[in-house]
Amino acid sequence: MNEIVLVGLGLHDEKGISLRGLEEAKTSDHIFIELYTSLLPGFSMKRFEKLSGKKLCTLSRRELEDESGKKILDAAEKGKVVLLVPGDPLIATTHIALRIEAEKRGVKTRIVHGASALSAVIGLSGLHSYKFGKCVTIPFPDETSSETPYEVITKNRKFGLHTICLLDIKAEQKRYLTIPEAIDALLEIEQKRKAGTVTLGTLAVGIAQAGSSNPTVKADFLKNLRKHDFPDPPQTLIFPGKLHFTEAEALIVLAGAPRKLMETAE
Amino acid sequence: MNEIVLVGLGLHDEKGISLRGLEEAKTSDHIFIELYTSLLPGFSMKRFEKLSGKKLCTLSRRELEDESGKKILDAAEKGKVVLLVPGDPLIATTHIALRIEAEKRGVKTRIVHGASALSAVIGLSGLHSYKFGKCVTIPFPDETSSETPYEVITKNRKFGLHTICLLDIKAEQKRYLTIPEAIDALLEIEQKRKAGTVTLGTLAVGIAQAGSSNPTVKADFLKNLRKHDFPDPPQTLIFPGKLHFTEAEALIVLAGAPRKLMETAE
Repeated sequence: MNEIVLVGLGLHDEKGISLRGLEEAKTSDHIFIELYTSLLPGFSMKRFEKLSGKKLCTLSRRELEDESGKKILDAAEKGKVVLLVPGDPLIATTHIALRIEAEKRGVKTRIVHGASALSAVIGLSGLHSYKFGKCVTIPFPDETSSETPYEVITKNRKFGLHTICLLDIKAEQKRYLTIPEAIDALLEIEQKRKAGTVTLGTLAVGIAQAGSSNPTVKADFLKNLRKHDFPDPPQTLIFPGKLHFTEAEALIVLAGAPRKLMETAE
Repeated sequence: MNEIVLVGLGLHDEKGISLRGLEEAKTSDHIFIELYTSLLPGFSMKRFEKLSGKKLCTLSRRELEDESGKKILDAAEKGKVVLLVPGDPLIATTHIALRIEAEKRGVKTRIVHGASALSAVIGLSGLHSYKFGKCVTIPFPDETSSETPYEVITKNRKFGLHTICLLDIKAEQKRYLTIPEAIDALLEIEQKRKAGTVTLGTLAVGIAQAGSSNPTVKADFLKNLRKHDFPDPPQTLIFPGKLHFTEAEALIVLAGAPRKLMETAE
């Protein structure tokens, strides 16, 4: 059967994949993997090859993006191809482009979903999922002077909504923006914009190692959070909007937030 | 070890769970399961019991909410408890309440994430994940006259953002709001509010059976979408905001949208 199955690896390591995803891998003719759209800190190619009984072929960003996934598309002319991707497929636009290209060539595509970092950090924060606004990625400050993240947080906050800030990664260079760097980049924009969105007294939630057996979830004011000792990436920042009192309680009990949050919750 | 591990079952059936989640189930002293916060149409208790080698104890909404999860908390005094939940844990506020209650009693909690319907429908739609605003649930129209969903779509659209509309479920009564019913409920609010948010000419994406091997993803104007023959629930509706031309292309190629979408995309 000529088809491409995009399989989500879920979070953290090779045990994040679903039973359905592993089955697809076992019955494929070719398995490709990309590990640059998101970080799985505990993932081992060797262990996955043992689990699936198949050899993995790693694709670089160049092969998947500049060359439009030619390797995968060519392999799919000859049989069933599985592309393993971190998290949940299609959250990265690269995967959508590949799917469109395949369907245009008459190659069928299917998706096996995996746990996504977006959903995981919402859950770990204890904040209500229907109160999250648009999410945003904070870029490396030496690469761009974009103020978009600041604007997104400001606008969401205006409507009482929470903001997930994904932190940029350059997996192929092993560069990951950290929570303190992201906070400092936002504080610098605050110096210019002065909307009061991101100050030392602003509450945020830092999350590291989501999906591992021991994630860190710490809620505090930025003046403390920027000094907090978070474990290695992946890391994420959440800026809460208006807090319902059950959300304030969750931040206090599950994320060590200052007790005085209860005073301003609704 | 006295602890409660909330394990996400992911989507569709018993093969949606991660390898890590199944391992936790196999090594637990008690397994509880709730299947009312979301629908897994292909899930079989029998098959899961065979996979895990453990007996499952089903919890009703009453047991988990009105009785604050007393059964689980009591079992956790005696050993390791796994609570299986559809999708990704903690997206339902019930699970957050249970976690807080447990931690207050000194019982540790851990999370094993699963694929979430929220992330799955974003991916299946082909729309860009960072362009989704606040999401909303459309309730049964005979139970409430809430106009919140209409307002959320209107506000998101104002900022060019997409809206996920989850459709209400009453799993214990096997009642699931369908896409045509949800569309008609919104059209009725339009009659009153006349903001032009939801008309017969409005584009939307209907998704059914997300997470199965053959999900339906159909993009069309409401006048056609409300007559489209979707398979059984779970079903979800997405109202796109402003479309980037790659998003329009994705809707056309992957979701059979009318080609004229390309004319209005940016």
